[in-house]
Amino acid sequence: MQFTSDNAAAVHPAVWKAMMAADAPDAPYDNDALSRRLDGAFSALFGRECAVLWTATGTAANCLALASLVQPHGAAVCHREAHIEMDEAGAPGFFLHGAKLLLADGASAKVTPQTLAAVVDIIRDDVHQVQPHAISITQASEYGCVYRPDEVAAIAAFAKTRGLGLHMDGARFANAAAHLGCTPAEAAGDVDVLSFGFVKNGGMSAEAIVFFDVEAARAIRYRRKRAGHLQSKGRFMAAQILAMLENDLWLDNARAANAAAAEIAAAAPGRLLHPVEANEVFLTCTAAEREALRGAGFAFYDWGADAARLVTSWDARAEHVGPLAKAIASL
Amino acid sequence: MQFTSDNAAAVHPAVWKAMMAADAPDAPYDNDALSRRLDGAFSALFGRECAVLWTATGTAANCLALASLVQPHGAAVCHREAHIEMDEAGAPGFFLHGAKLLLADGASAKVTPQTLAAVVDIIRDDVHQVQPHAISITQASEYGCVYRPDEVAAIAAFAKTRGLGLHMDGARFANAAAHLGCTPAEAAGDVDVLSFGFVKNGGMSAEAIVFFDVEAARAIRYRRKRAGHLQSKGRFMAAQILAMLENDLWLDNARAANAAAAEIAAAAPGRLLHPVEANEVFLTCTAAEREALRGAGFAFYDWGADAARLVTSWDARAEHVGPLAKAIASL
Amino acid sequence: MQFTSDNAAAVHPAVWKAMMAADAPDAPYDNDALSRRLDGAFSALFGRECAVLWTATGTAANCLALASLVQPHGAAVCHREAHIEMDEAGAPGFFLHGAKLLLADGASAKVTPQTLAAVVDIIRDDVHQVQPHAISITQASEYGCVYRPDEVAAIAAFAKTRGLGLHMDGARFANAAAHLGCTPAEAAGDVDVLSFGFVKNGGMSAEAIVFFDVEAARAIRYRRKRAGHLQSKGRFMAAQILAMLENDLWLDNARAANAAAAEIAAAAPGRLLHPVEANEVFLTCTAAEREALRGAGFAFYDWGADAARLVTSWDARAEHVGPLAKAIASL
Amino acid sequence: MQFTSDNAAAVHPAVWKAMMAADAPDAPYDNDALSRRLDGAFSALFGRECAVLWTATGTAANCLALASLVQPHGAAVCHREAHIEMDEAGAPGFFLHGAKLLLADGASAKVTPQTLAAVVDIIRDDVHQVQPHAISITQASEYGCVYRPDEVAAIAAFAKTRGLGLHMDGARFANAAAHLGCTPAEAAGDVDVLSFGFVKNGGMSAEAIVFFDVEAARAIRYRRKRAGHLQSKGRFMAAQILAMLENDLWLDNARAANAAAAEIAAAAPGRLLHPVEANEVFLTCTAAEREALRGAGFAFYDWGADAARLVTSWDARAEHVGPLAKAIASL
Repeated sequence: MQFTSDNAAAVHPAVWKAMMAADAPDAPYDNDALSRRLDGAFSALFGRECAVLWTATGTAANCLALASLVQPHGAAVCHREAHIEMDEAGAPGFFLHGAKLLLADGASAKVTPQTLAAVVDIIRDDVHQVQPHAISITQASEYGCVYRPDEVAAIAAFAKTRGLGLHMDGARFANAAAHLGCTPAEAAGDVDVLSFGFVKNGGMSAEAIVFFDVEAARAIRYRRKRAGHLQSKGRFMAAQILAMLENDLWLDNARAANAAAAEIAAAAPGRLLHPVEANEVFLTCTAAEREALRGAGFAFYDWGADAARLVTSWDARAEHVGPLAKAIASL
Repeated sequence: MQFTSDNAAAVHPAVWKAMMAADAPDAPYDNDALSRRLDGAFSALFGRECAVLWTATGTAANCLALASLVQPHGAAVCHREAHIEMDEAGAPGFFLHGAKLLLADGASAKVTPQTLAAVVDIIRDDVHQVQPHAISITQASEYGCVYRPDEVAAIAAFAKTRGLGLHMDGARFANAAAHLGCTPAEAAGDVDVLSFGFVKNGGMSAEAIVFFDVEAARAIRYRRKRAGHLQSKGRFMAAQILAMLENDLWLDNARAANAAAAEIAAAAPGRLLHPVEANEVFLTCTAAEREALRGAGFAFYDWGADAARLVTSWDARAEHVGPLAKAIASL
Repeated sequence: MQFTSDNAAAVHPAVWKAMMAADAPDAPYDNDALSRRLDGAFSALFGRECAVLWTATGTAANCLALASLVQPHGAAVCHREAHIEMDEAGAPGFFLHGAKLLLADGASAKVTPQTLAAVVDIIRDDVHQVQPHAISITQASEYGCVYRPDEVAAIAAFAKTRGLGLHMDGARFANAAAHLGCTPAEAAGDVDVLSFGFVKNGGMSAEAIVFFDVEAARAIRYRRKRAGHLQSKGRFMAAQILAMLENDLWLDNARAANAAAAEIAAAAPGRLLHPVEANEVFLTCTAAEREALRGAGFAFYDWGADAARLVTSWDARAEHVGPLAKAIASL
Repeated sequence: MQFTSDNAAAVHPAVWKAMMAADAPDAPYDNDALSRRLDGAFSALFGRECAVLWTATGTAANCLALASLVQPHGAAVCHREAHIEMDEAGAPGFFLHGAKLLLADGASAKVTPQTLAAVVDIIRDDVHQVQPHAISITQASEYGCVYRPDEVAAIAAFAKTRGLGLHMDGARFANAAAHLGCTPAEAAGDVDVLSFGFVKNGGMSAEAIVFFDVEAARAIRYRRKRAGHLQSKGRFMAAQILAMLENDLWLDNARAANAAAAEIAAAAPGRLLHPVEANEVFLTCTAAEREALRGAGFAFYDWGADAARLVTSWDARAEHVGPLAKAIASL
């Protein structure tokens, strides 16, 4: 009974169906009919003009997005536990040609204008110090917490006053939007570019980079190819994404994962290390308790010496979640 | 009736079947059971120890392979019409951190020890000139011609005497092996690393980097992740490749594509610009003749002002190939 | 009697004097009084607003200049024998983060709008091919030939129509200006940025990057520091350059070198491989003839199997030049 | 009366003398007689075989040194206030092609095996996390404190057990050696490569990279040229360094600077934020006190809101130092 991560979950049947339906040969790369529908689909979803590029991973999506905002001699500011800092093998340094990541603090891996200012405002504007060019926030955060629209707005306003671009790592954007119950545009706010994740949420191998500054997407098309991320059978990438958007499947899947997480969280509210607002649950949990849970057949990652991280997927099964909640409650 | 390229052809049913069979959640990245079978599968195929990494594109495969051989301050030597020079948007410069490509000549995009020496041996070994670190050959070449085992051996020997690594871009390796009728090991020869292509040959989105120097693969695992090419649902990548290897489907598909190309070539041997040894046919063809063919419903790319390039795919249909051959014969 | 190159000649006394006069401590980096005078000095020299950065080598000057014009995913177009292609150890690939150099032809290493178009206009504007972002011309060229103002104007016009930036590698700009007898502004023409060489012309270790687009210099200040080229005792760099500008010492030195080259050229006009318009003389010369010259005490480089390259410096000595001219005449 | 930094101090007369004596033309780059003496000079100084490269700045020296130890996909571990992290404009990211800097703690900017282990040992060896490849320590540290030989030995032993290279940023190595009163070899310890600083200590524009692993220097020769740091009139670079080594001028200059710092420190031992072991003095000092000192004609940098940083140079003048010490004592 897997609660290790949502990053290797099964693929939703609608996605399989769409991929197979796309099998008939079409133009290569992103010139096929399905890829050509993406801009319109996301523009409709966000109620504003978007330029959309698919890529195979969130790492590539994040880094190509940041490449539109950060010059090689600059830096991106992110939370010190941001995925781009912790778990992307230095991908930002690669894609951004050596640009730095400047690390900010914040509870539950959420930065605020204050924590950003603490990093940004102490940098002298001279050539000796790397200047920030953009901010990157993760929605939902690496601890499964969600930025409210007013929080994103405050960060966007801060970014504007400091002349910085704003990127949103939305590996779990769906879960954030599901939690907020608002429109996607409200969940994203006034960011320049969003890495809209689908793989964790029922897709197979396609994520979307959504540029709200459509001009900025132009150079990134070259850089995507240059990074080996322009697949020739691109219709299968677009098919996955369009299937996820259809009938708001992305939102339904996220709601399901969130609900499962909420059920687990409700079992032991006193153990929660962070509010459960998406599909991740961080619990204080001794080594012995973790062993007991594993002995009962539940798989999950330790989080340091005395905590556990549980992640629910779009296909969370009631016959797994219920027992887990019970088992935690009775620890 | 599509003869533009094999890079956007349909996906073979066995590949779909294998991907769907892999749907049950497994470990993420390349820790799943299928990915773990790759080393053994290719070791058996080549009759020698291999370390294998999947990636989504031939561009990524080529560049990550070259990264194991070329330092940033060095260069790779390739044919001046090599895909890595002409059509990868500068990807080698990106992945190799600014290393150069030194261009050699050769008929039908095949280099020889002589044409390589003409480039390599004039370089002074001093710090002012970029030193070659490796050679990259494309098997089958960009003009659909195949290196015979003795030709690869001569290049490998040359590489050894000059202290250079040797990479084989095998986007159409299957077609080459099918043409040669020899073992894969004989078709690859004594190269250090092979980009073994599957996408053009019936796969969907997975290529393999086959390291014959298994130690060299170690650093490239980090670089693959760093380049955003370590997909989390890696089992679907491995599933495609294993399905292609099973029962030599890769070879059957390539034979089919080659046979279709041979049929077309036989229709107008006097028009051939290059020997047809794989699945590409380059024909002299006036603008008017090309218009006539297009008028008859055949799609293909112009090749300069007075030639056409026809590419056959694994799923070449007799009811398309026959008429095309006839149409060309009667031009 | 050295005619190998002008790149290791002595330093002019006025430059020594200026460096020693600058010894009193001043602000570090480029905040000292002398560095602060550079913009004004070059603005006066060119009759237009300039932003000027010093660097220690022409390689750094060229690459930092190009960095203001070429994005990592783009390319610079230059002559196939351009110094940046042949003798900078791949520095453009390093500083430009993997951007390519696209090579054009032209007699005496001078490109023309036609030879540039032959390279630029065949590039499809799609993501598979690296797009040119700038042109780089060398004034005087690598064969010691000079672009006339109308030639530079034609290239600048071509660049404008194609949306490309224009860089001038002026390692021997002084020699070109001396040859043309026109103003520096006329010798440079409508380029965006000029690497103005001083080291070969009597300086010690300082070259100037002259930005005619002063805004473009801003980002390059960061990149200069980032490349380890912002020396802390920058006043000594500025001192060299200002000494070279004072009383047009740069022009006098170049005239002297040019005159010496002209004297040598006049000795054997029939042997000249290229017009002698600066301070380099390329002569057909058999191996035996070269041996004879060396036996007479003249040092120079072979240029291929049957030619010699002679370079005169600012401090060319009549008692060396005369005998060399005689010796060549009597071969 | 300047105590802002030692990085823009005057040049020692012996250095001027040596540069002028080197004026006669010689082979270019580092092929001249003086440059060819460097390996031997440093080998004698350190009592072991060295390969030495000059560069114009400490930034270039540090980064080229690290390039011999750190692969692009790796990281260097340094103190969080290390110069390479704080004040080199992201140069490590540039020269190391995107490698990261992992930051460790330690009093007075000195790391220890414990603080290094706290960073290094928590990194999982998998492809998601950037792996450390080397450690960089600054001797004397950024707070003017010196690693004793046993401290360097402990770090070197730690590096060996973890398979990491070890670099020493010796911008003020002379001051450290002067303080320790031991041999240079003892002051450097078992590091792989040392950036031996001379500019701050009486030189003009030359620093030395001293490779104790002489094979490692080979690739760096290419990278130095590639980075635009191979000056053509290299004899002037070597001349500076040889002049500094002659008769231990480097040590005398450092002793003078250290003595001046010690004199200042002795004036107010209660104010010292860090032990004064080199030529930097960090004092608690209110804004009003700093204003008073400035009013008395002393120039220095603030260090945060309530401290000052005073730096003494090789040419510290008694008639400046004495009054400063007095002024501080009477605050």
